[in-house]
Amino acid sequence: MAESARLVDLVQAGIDDFLDERAPELQAIAPELSTFIDYSRELLQGGKRFRALFCYWGWQAVHGRGAESTASDFGAVVSAASALEIFHAAALVHDDIMDNSDTRRGMPSAHKRFAGLHAEGGWAGSHENFGRSGALLLGDLLLDWSDELFDNGLRQLSTAVSAAAARREFNTMRTEVTLGQYLDVVEEQSWHTHPESEHLDRAHKVIVYKSAKYSVEAPLVIGASLGGASETQLDALRDYGIPLGTAYQLRDDLLGVFGDAEKTGKPSGDDLREGKRTVLIALARAKLPANARALLDELLGDPELSSRQVSVLQASIRDSGAVEHVERIIDHNVRLAIGAIANAPLSTSARDELVALADRVIRRAA
Amino acid sequence: MAESARLVDLVQAGIDDFLDERAPELQAIAPELSTFIDYSRELLQGGKRFRALFCYWGWQAVHGRGAESTASDFGAVVSAASALEIFHAAALVHDDIMDNSDTRRGMPSAHKRFAGLHAEGGWAGSHENFGRSGALLLGDLLLDWSDELFDNGLRQLSTAVSAAAARREFNTMRTEVTLGQYLDVVEEQSWHTHPESEHLDRAHKVIVYKSAKYSVEAPLVIGASLGGASETQLDALRDYGIPLGTAYQLRDDLLGVFGDAEKTGKPSGDDLREGKRTVLIALARAKLPANARALLDELLGDPELSSRQVSVLQASIRDSGAVEHVERIIDHNVRLAIGAIANAPLSTSARDELVALADRVIRRAA
Repeated sequence: MAESARLVDLVQAGIDDFLDERAPELQAIAPELSTFIDYSRELLQGGKRFRALFCYWGWQAVHGRGAESTASDFGAVVSAASALEIFHAAALVHDDIMDNSDTRRGMPSAHKRFAGLHAEGGWAGSHENFGRSGALLLGDLLLDWSDELFDNGLRQLSTAVSAAAARREFNTMRTEVTLGQYLDVVEEQSWHTHPESEHLDRAHKVIVYKSAKYSVEAPLVIGASLGGASETQLDALRDYGIPLGTAYQLRDDLLGVFGDAEKTGKPSGDDLREGKRTVLIALARAKLPANARALLDELLGDPELSSRQVSVLQASIRDSGAVEHVERIIDHNVRLAIGAIANAPLSTSARDELVALADRVIRRAA
Repeated sequence: MAESARLVDLVQAGIDDFLDERAPELQAIAPELSTFIDYSRELLQGGKRFRALFCYWGWQAVHGRGAESTASDFGAVVSAASALEIFHAAALVHDDIMDNSDTRRGMPSAHKRFAGLHAEGGWAGSHENFGRSGALLLGDLLLDWSDELFDNGLRQLSTAVSAAAARREFNTMRTEVTLGQYLDVVEEQSWHTHPESEHLDRAHKVIVYKSAKYSVEAPLVIGASLGGASETQLDALRDYGIPLGTAYQLRDDLLGVFGDAEKTGKPSGDDLREGKRTVLIALARAKLPANARALLDELLGDPELSSRQVSVLQASIRDSGAVEHVERIIDHNVRLAIGAIANAPLSTSARDELVALADRVIRRAA
């Protein structure tokens, strides 16, 4: 854990240094551009840093604590881990535009901040449109910057073959999460046009691409590739990453419906107002009697749901038994994940930490 | 010209090949993802290809036709040029979201296409929101893909130092155009909060970052860097690129107000409805009598302008003398551009072609 805490500090320092370098460049172009630095700093302050941790422990799993490690290789891993966090910030900024989410970690989301700037300045046109444009561009900029920082890392690495392998995994991750996000939006709005029998599979596919690969498997495999992982090692990490990442998202889905607003930083029942068609919802629909299902279908996705309506939906989903069912799937997936690395040729310290991380991932309240 | 025509064909083939490779990967994830390939193909079919051409001629200026050129270096330049066109497609997709532009080259813009898909499918929620989300993700995907293709090019290059230099210029370009876009949006909505005396300078800064560097200077310098340009060569190309790029945008501004919809593929007077605060508008405001200026300020940026109101504004701007003034600035900048390469240590064939390209850039009607 001390090693994880140290990594998190180094990642924060890596991000801060990167933004410190950019700040005077932006200032030199125009003073109003400092907004991009300010918002980036706030977005990139704290957070759970799971992606950075999986990247680091993927590397450490292959590389081993005892192995000889050049400072430059270690620096490469910290840069890559920091780049993953910047990429994630970009994805969140764009995601909040798509979801019309006004808060992120209890703070105004980026498009709300830009809209506020517009309002304060007394500018012409719509606050909302300007907010969206500003956030769209901030997301684009952070995408570019994550790529730059990732490349900075690769250049420090002593092995070109490992750098190329890590780059391939990074590229795959970017493409897959973007496509997964699209499938998520499509599912949310088109679910009723697909046969009932396909709902669960479709929700599961969204999880795999939007989340399991992106949040756990890809960071792990990128880290492991930086360390020159063998195919056997990569297979073990993938077999840990996909089920744990699935469990991660299932926990997220539960938090999106039942989470404590104080802890999640999002309004309670946010996913209900948004109408997310998750595995939880697919299971609840399958289990509920016809009239309760009809009510769920009617209310889900109504952005104006009252807190009483949210409570009714929460009770209905809970009473259906879908929550216990999702908890069982989470447990099953975590067991699969831990089993996959139990005897794999990975460093003992990393295996221990990956078991501990699995626990943190599924026990979190935010 | 034959060489330019051949390059344009090779770039189209490079883009098509890249999309052909991606298509089965997307199809394997989910059939609905083929939308991304279809829309990308349509977006990337044709266009003026100025960025690809400047990239190629930047390389050729340094490398020279007579010089020994490996097939692999030539392939690197074609890949980089193709990557610039994919990046540009991404920028246009995001730009059309920000500007609420419904058409692009006479066809529905990406967000309109996605909105149409939503409408046809009878999906739940708002067509417009879905359209915007789909286009936002398509833009993100194209940003990632442009980066991948650019990297593919760099890997083919025989000189690592040149590859690193070209990558730096590519990164700078991405950051600067994103920031320039932001300054453009800010200017459009906050111009009235700045002193009159600053309007022209502020409009000029938008041009430099959003357009002059992005459309001409950066592609040229990226190409030249791929060829291992010296500082003297880079300076000459920059001194050609910035004024020509400025002239390019000034022509664009004139087309945005006076262009023929049949040729531009955008409604006539589009920039007036959008309220773009261009150099043309700053000059017209400075020249117009108070009552005409007040009318311009009142109407500019009203998305509901009638075609009669558009005609009134066009006449007012023309009568102010601002159009002739902009034409003079264009001519002046083109002379500066051509002068900058007249005696520069660049290949003769490239110099000739850059002179011809300058003419095409400013004489275009679309």
